[in-house]
Amino acid sequence: MNHFISFETLDLELIRDLVDDAISFKRKKAFPNLSNHYISNLFFENSTRTKLSFEMAEKKTGMEIIYFDAESSSIKKGETLYDTVKTLNSIGVECFVIRHTQDRFYEELIPRINVPIINAGDGCGDHPTQSLLDLVTIYEEFGTFKDLNIVIAGDIVHSRVAHSDAKILKRFGANISFATPEFWRDSSMTMGTYTTLDKVVSDVDVIMLLRNQNERHAQQYDENDFLSQYGLTTERAAKMKPSAIIMHPAPINRNVEIDETLIEAPQSRIFTQMSNGVFARIAVLNYVFNS
Amino acid sequence: MNHFISFETLDLELIRDLVDDAISFKRKKAFPNLSNHYISNLFFENSTRTKLSFEMAEKKTGMEIIYFDAESSSIKKGETLYDTVKTLNSIGVECFVIRHTQDRFYEELIPRINVPIINAGDGCGDHPTQSLLDLVTIYEEFGTFKDLNIVIAGDIVHSRVAHSDAKILKRFGANISFATPEFWRDSSMTMGTYTTLDKVVSDVDVIMLLRNQNERHAQQYDENDFLSQYGLTTERAAKMKPSAIIMHPAPINRNVEIDETLIEAPQSRIFTQMSNGVFARIAVLNYVFNS
Amino acid sequence: MNHFISFETLDLELIRDLVDDAISFKRKKAFPNLSNHYISNLFFENSTRTKLSFEMAEKKTGMEIIYFDAESSSIKKGETLYDTVKTLNSIGVECFVIRHTQDRFYEELIPRINVPIINAGDGCGDHPTQSLLDLVTIYEEFGTFKDLNIVIAGDIVHSRVAHSDAKILKRFGANISFATPEFWRDSSMTMGTYTTLDKVVSDVDVIMLLRNQNERHAQQYDENDFLSQYGLTTERAAKMKPSAIIMHPAPINRNVEIDETLIEAPQSRIFTQMSNGVFARIAVLNYVFNS
Repeated sequence: MNHFISFETLDLELIRDLVDDAISFKRKKAFPNLSNHYISNLFFENSTRTKLSFEMAEKKTGMEIIYFDAESSSIKKGETLYDTVKTLNSIGVECFVIRHTQDRFYEELIPRINVPIINAGDGCGDHPTQSLLDLVTIYEEFGTFKDLNIVIAGDIVHSRVAHSDAKILKRFGANISFATPEFWRDSSMTMGTYTTLDKVVSDVDVIMLLRNQNERHAQQYDENDFLSQYGLTTERAAKMKPSAIIMHPAPINRNVEIDETLIEAPQSRIFTQMSNGVFARIAVLNYVFNS
Repeated sequence: MNHFISFETLDLELIRDLVDDAISFKRKKAFPNLSNHYISNLFFENSTRTKLSFEMAEKKTGMEIIYFDAESSSIKKGETLYDTVKTLNSIGVECFVIRHTQDRFYEELIPRINVPIINAGDGCGDHPTQSLLDLVTIYEEFGTFKDLNIVIAGDIVHSRVAHSDAKILKRFGANISFATPEFWRDSSMTMGTYTTLDKVVSDVDVIMLLRNQNERHAQQYDENDFLSQYGLTTERAAKMKPSAIIMHPAPINRNVEIDETLIEAPQSRIFTQMSNGVFARIAVLNYVFNS
Repeated sequence: MNHFISFETLDLELIRDLVDDAISFKRKKAFPNLSNHYISNLFFENSTRTKLSFEMAEKKTGMEIIYFDAESSSIKKGETLYDTVKTLNSIGVECFVIRHTQDRFYEELIPRINVPIINAGDGCGDHPTQSLLDLVTIYEEFGTFKDLNIVIAGDIVHSRVAHSDAKILKRFGANISFATPEFWRDSSMTMGTYTTLDKVVSDVDVIMLLRNQNERHAQQYDENDFLSQYGLTTERAAKMKPSAIIMHPAPINRNVEIDETLIEAPQSRIFTQMSNGVFARIAVLNYVFNS
């Protein structure tokens, strides 16, 4: 039994195995059999794609889902996360996928809960299954991470994805740069150099756009100017190398982070990322139960 | 692969086939096998019977349901309907049942989404699976639509059901009349004559009551007077032909549109309509996947 | 076909059979097969453990769940409980588990609905599956109820559990006492004597703590003093007999009703109660369908 909390504590070989597993599941359309296992997805923040991607992964491996709704739960009566998890575990739930507003929510659970905990996003911390699906998408494209030039653009400071991805891609030998407005710089992000999209767009292999998380902070920019100043316009995209790809974790603010005509353009892997998310999560379920 | 959006674009023979299929599924208690197909029901308006009727139809055909909750979804982060559908499709959902407040919401989806879209109610537009279950209920009773005298009574102007039903029943040769208060007349509804329940109650084969949709508009009448003036009272019902039936799409405002003692009276087909809804929807699922 | 509404109308032999069944299902890990039966859980009050415990019981017996969400249902359009149940029954739901704010909500359903109704908590009335899981937990521990000394402590007046448990345990021959603050005494509760925890803690076999239901009434006490005055402190617990056990229906207000270090102490059966709840509910499902 394993937890799956963060890439920080996992060695590179294991992460590479997860990438390989996900690609293999995708190609063979054959999945590990986890039937007769009961799982629950505890999402304390709004989510469509992560939550339903997990549910699809769980159904494709034959798991039984016990549906938990934070809104109608006893959390509303003041119950703690630990008590909720312990309760569900007592009634037979054998694995928990959790998204929570609190950073490192899992620290109070792991020493006291004897079944796998999977982190589906903790506060402004990690979102390791999103990072894994990003790795899967890049590896599927290039067959390597080493020496790839990757620019991460946008709201670095509030993004779980930016933090997780920059760290793991750096560990795998990629060259990371950040193209971010002055007001969203994050001095703790030292694994890459700060730049602008205009300076690097013609050299990079991957443009990873981020979502402007307007629901997490007061808006510090004029939405009408953001695309032209900081986003991926058609003019900028025209300078990309033919082999380079566009990524975005979604949901997208159309015509803010990216011109909407680019979302389904040939170089976009945005919906491929979503498809890969299911296979990445199947790899994670397999890991927590079968490794 | 087919969409199922409206009766407008379907020829009568096909609609008749759907009616026959539904009745056949009901009688034989044998259903098409759609197992290993993933479906999602996207309801952006409150609903019990339509949503759960679809879910029952999906379960009876062995489909896997990916549960979507509009309230906790990324729609709350400003995501468009198209992006939500495209996202779910990317993670493997192969069919969408959608109810949405916007008229003709499906027009932006159909050219760009490559899996079946089923309309479960669009704004003040259509509600074709409700119409289909109404057809099933009438056909099961009378074996024909031709020359039946059908009165549609109540809130015509706001009713998706009234619009869809009047059009299709007229195409099938029924004689349609509308018994509606002056303030709810709809000048665009020319497929029938305007009348009152008192004038036609003893001649009709079918009384189709509508729901007063108080949640959609300011109430324009005194609730205490509505039944006696416009609704189906026991006095009016006593004048019906013995072979005539009472229908209502529900939910019912008891003692407003209909005296509550009539709801489960021998001539009422109100709960039969609900039962037939499941078989009608099985016929639609079979059509979108197997025709 | 049976309903399961209250212990009041059931004879002791039948209740003992349900206890035996639950313990047998737990030991053998073999469950009755109720596959191809459709069930719906209608919860009109927030709940985690009762609702999900039922869902687990339903899944373990192979039932198909039609998920009902009170918040997005036509109840919001003013539909009555009866109409909702009749509707779901018409579309094929064959059993209803219902929690409702109204006392004896089931009285209007039972004469008119032809499928099993299971009471999952009615207003300030009964909560018989909670009582059953309490019986299972006590019987599993002591092999009898007769002559056990059981103190029920806390918010007696608002507790469905206190009412149900006190009555049934008394019928089985246990000695009941109530340790409750003056302001929560209930003059209708005559099946036991009023006392304090301090007076009885060293003599009882079972301490059944109740939840302070702050969401149901204005708080009448100082939360900081409650534990020391009325709750189970470590000092009080140290005086318990070695064979005595601690129970609580949860959710727990930590350090109010009980010192939090006791929740998972060796004498606590709090999480055992939750595990037993699943088997108790399997016994109830078996009873309503197969007896």
